[in-house]
Amino acid sequence: MISKTPVPPYYAVIFTSLRTDGDHGYDKTANRMVELVQKQKGFLGLETARSEIGITVSYWKTLEAIQEWKNNLEHLTAQKSGKEKWYAAYKIRICKVERDYEF
Amino acid sequence: MISKTPVPPYYAVIFTSLRTDGDHGYDKTANRMVELVQKQKGFLGLETARSEIGITVSYWKTLEAIQEWKNNLEHLTAQKSGKEKWYAAYKIRICKVERDYEF
Repeated sequence: MISKTPVPPYYAVIFTSLRTDGDHGYDKTANRMVELVQKQKGFLGLETARSEIGITVSYWKTLEAIQEWKNNLEHLTAQKSGKEKWYAAYKIRICKVERDYEF
Repeated sequence: MISKTPVPPYYAVIFTSLRTDGDHGYDKTANRMVELVQKQKGFLGLETARSEIGITVSYWKTLEAIQEWKNNLEHLTAQKSGKEKWYAAYKIRICKVERDYEF
C-alpha cells in the first residue's frame, strides 16, 4: 500500500533491481526482511512493486536508521545471497524527501 | 530498466499510485507521457513497476526541471484525467538523491 509517512523532511531508500531466473529461496527471505524491517528503529514505511524490474522504496526518519538497517546481521546475510543468487543487477539510491503531496 | 543516472546529487520524484478498475485510456496516455518526459530538459531517467500498487520514479538534474515537467500542458491534461479516472489514490514525493551505489 501507499505508505503514510510524516511531514517531510525524512529519508527514502530507492532499491531498483533486476532479478535472476528462478526463486532460489528469494520469496521466503524477502518476506522475512519485510517482517524484520518493520521492527527497525526509525522505519516509516515500505512500498514495493515488480514488473520487468522491481522497485522497493523504504522510508526512514534519519540516515542513521538507514545505516543500522544496512548493518543488521540477518539483513547482511540476505544482502550476500542477493548478490550471489537473486539479483542480476541492482541500484540503491539514498534520498532526502523534501516535499510530498497526495490525492 | 535500471536508470543510468549521474553522480549525485540529483533529484528523484517517487510517484506511488493505486489504480481504479479498467483502462479508460490510461495505457495510451501513459505511453505518451513516457515518450514526452524523455524530451524534457533536465530529465535523467525513468523506472516503473506495478503490482498491487504502482511505483514510478523519475530522475532529474534540478528542482526547476521537475517543476517544468509538472507544468507541461499535455502533462497537466493527463494529471487531470488521472484524478478523474485512473487513480483511486496517489502520493508524490520530491527527493534529493544524496548517495547511490550499485551491483
